[in-house]
Amino acid sequence: MRVPMRAYDLIRKKRDGTALSAGEIAWLVGGFVLGSVPDYQMAAFLMAVYFRGMTSEETAALTEAVVRSGERLDLGSLAGRAVDKHSSGGVGDKTSLVLVPLVASAGVPVPKLSGRGLGHTGGTLDKLEAIPGFTTALSEAAFVEQVERIGCAIAGQSAAMVPADARLYALRDVTATVDSVPLIASSIMSKKLAAGASAILLDVKCGRGAFMKTEAGARILAEAMVAIGRAAGRSTAAVISAMDHPLGRAVGNALEVAEAIATLRGEGPGDLEALCLVLGGWMLVLGGCAASPEEGSEELLHRLRSGDALRKFEALVIAQGGDARVVRDPGRLPSAPYRLAAPAPTFGVVVGIDAEAVGLAAMRLGAGRTRKGEGVDPAVGIVIERPAGSTVEVGESLATIHARSEEAGVAAAREVAAAFEIGESAPAEAPVIRGVIRG
Amino acid sequence: MRVPMRAYDLIRKKRDGTALSAGEIAWLVGGFVLGSVPDYQMAAFLMAVYFRGMTSEETAALTEAVVRSGERLDLGSLAGRAVDKHSSGGVGDKTSLVLVPLVASAGVPVPKLSGRGLGHTGGTLDKLEAIPGFTTALSEAAFVEQVERIGCAIAGQSAAMVPADARLYALRDVTATVDSVPLIASSIMSKKLAAGASAILLDVKCGRGAFMKTEAGARILAEAMVAIGRAAGRSTAAVISAMDHPLGRAVGNALEVAEAIATLRGEGPGDLEALCLVLGGWMLVLGGCAASPEEGSEELLHRLRSGDALRKFEALVIAQGGDARVVRDPGRLPSAPYRLAAPAPTFGVVVGIDAEAVGLAAMRLGAGRTRKGEGVDPAVGIVIERPAGSTVEVGESLATIHARSEEAGVAAAREVAAAFEIGESAPAEAPVIRGVIRG
Repeated sequence: MRVPMRAYDLIRKKRDGTALSAGEIAWLVGGFVLGSVPDYQMAAFLMAVYFRGMTSEETAALTEAVVRSGERLDLGSLAGRAVDKHSSGGVGDKTSLVLVPLVASAGVPVPKLSGRGLGHTGGTLDKLEAIPGFTTALSEAAFVEQVERIGCAIAGQSAAMVPADARLYALRDVTATVDSVPLIASSIMSKKLAAGASAILLDVKCGRGAFMKTEAGARILAEAMVAIGRAAGRSTAAVISAMDHPLGRAVGNALEVAEAIATLRGEGPGDLEALCLVLGGWMLVLGGCAASPEEGSEELLHRLRSGDALRKFEALVIAQGGDARVVRDPGRLPSAPYRLAAPAPTFGVVVGIDAEAVGLAAMRLGAGRTRKGEGVDPAVGIVIERPAGSTVEVGESLATIHARSEEAGVAAAREVAAAFEIGESAPAEAPVIRGVIRG
Repeated sequence: MRVPMRAYDLIRKKRDGTALSAGEIAWLVGGFVLGSVPDYQMAAFLMAVYFRGMTSEETAALTEAVVRSGERLDLGSLAGRAVDKHSSGGVGDKTSLVLVPLVASAGVPVPKLSGRGLGHTGGTLDKLEAIPGFTTALSEAAFVEQVERIGCAIAGQSAAMVPADARLYALRDVTATVDSVPLIASSIMSKKLAAGASAILLDVKCGRGAFMKTEAGARILAEAMVAIGRAAGRSTAAVISAMDHPLGRAVGNALEVAEAIATLRGEGPGDLEALCLVLGGWMLVLGGCAASPEEGSEELLHRLRSGDALRKFEALVIAQGGDARVVRDPGRLPSAPYRLAAPAPTFGVVVGIDAEAVGLAAMRLGAGRTRKGEGVDPAVGIVIERPAGSTVEVGESLATIHARSEEAGVAAAREVAAAFEIGESAPAEAPVIRGVIRG
């Protein structure tokens, strides 16, 4: 006799530290989506997961159940092994803007779906929409066709994909159960699995500007995600990178597009270019177009220098309806009416720049959103003029604030200046890449 | 500027192991009752409490907030210090039936409100309702008037009292958050505080027939409840008693009433009488009518022998509309059509009787309810004929089953016989009283 499952028993099992079977997890998620498992039972379950964690088998089963809740993208028609990419995000993180065309220019298809999310600046979609005319609302057919034709596309994820993830996230968000590694890992990976690429590269950030403050925490999250990818039969690797200072110099939507364009031209900030070459090198390995990440990086450096990467970005902008003139003339991007300097209060050497403080200042300028559905201001933001290691004089500009009003600019200038730690000697150089986890 | 409270922040605080203030707890419970704090947030909070526990200050604040959610009984008109009594319940626990009239006969007012709950047999209300005509539905005015007039009353708790407790319990019941000491302690004590007595005696059971299986667990629960009573300004004490074997001989509603009557006549089983004298002795101390529990017990033994206790029970039955003839002639209580022996499968000494197994057998006979609102059969049950320590011959009756049908009786006889552990030598006598906690 089969005893019918009850949500109560599964909550209790998890509460008591016993692992659930894949069938039990599938039943729970399925019931939650159908409404037969009410929110209050799922909330209790999620809090029990917060305290008890999940085994890698449970996490894989949860992810699989979430993927099954909705549609999946069929990339079967693509030639070559498509590689998707995810970043855990950070202040000034415009790596996707660089990597998608860069990796595609080396022959690996990059079909990239993004969400909007909340944050200091908009997400990849918001940044691209700073380009006049650029649309990220592509039909599934148009998206796949574009990847077939030019090798890459960047679009918003359809609401028909992983609906269970949206419902679970909304519940976690109001029940203080967001900060759980298996739940975070499963949420991210469910979107990647549904998006259909055969390989996935994860950029997991750690440091004061990242969600994971410590390298150890980032490693745990990375391992959880790689295990999910492996269980689902996808080639998966994770690069752990530092996010203490803002990445590159620009923080803000149009400002980051301009910086991405500079990087694609081979003239970007060193830290951003270096990180993109490492991440991209791994993407070439996963896509079967390089034997080692070093070989991949070398190939990509060549693509930057040859102009191939920039041309691929131009093709991407054209394919998605954007004004391609911005690629040669970034001055055509939206710009803010007020530019103010954030002057150094003292002389010395820039020892550090608090990425989180810079991010919050950008958000208050209007670059990010605090609530779903809010718009973002494409033009505003911050450009760091004196990165870590620079010597500065009293009154010299540490950063330029791009503001919608003078008042907002003055407030941001004060906040940004306070985010600079100025000391007597240059800090020891810490490596940006902290480790790689291979599935 | 006062920042408005958010349930999210309180869940998170508890999740992270920080104690909430009394104001925060009051806000949360108040919002839950009003519906502005949804079930799913309360469910996550309760699971966080399951893992993190609560300080005694938090538990007291939770109890106070639950009490404030509804009406309270005003016992201000009573002469003398009214003493209430609660038992954590167990198989064959009919102490309330004995203690209420016994303690009242010694001059301490005993206003006793009970719930129905679920269990192996009915609760105190169900047991009393086995007496033809007995009603436990008294208005507040009638209840108080009866205590003024005869010194005691036993009635069902009004739904207008502690409505937050009922709502919280219903949510805990489906989210696997029942088994939490602060939540259990607060739920019990909220009802006792709302019931208005100035002193409270708690009988906390431990052992295989009790909710708390270990003495250590019972002690923790008892201490939590005593702390709540103290914080609310009530004289509170807890007696920890063993519940390994059924208490007394009878398990079943009318059967337990008959055994309570025998005990009030001074002819009850030794373990039941001894426990009632200890509990009652403490009630006299709390009520200010004895200097020590020993003095109180002695006084109560005198009341049993003098017939005062039995007369008080008779007055209670009359006051609440019952057929008082059952007091002198318990044969008038409802009786079951089938009586069957549970024969001993082997000879030897009764080493132990599994209280829980006997309780389940009683429930399956119809003595208890598994769902709220179900009726109970007053007549059915089990009478132990050979308590622990007795020598038995093969085929001798270990217990008599009182059943509604022969089939049910045969099944119960088998279960009950299996609940007897028969060995070679009598077990060491374990004390029934395991400790006392005084507020």
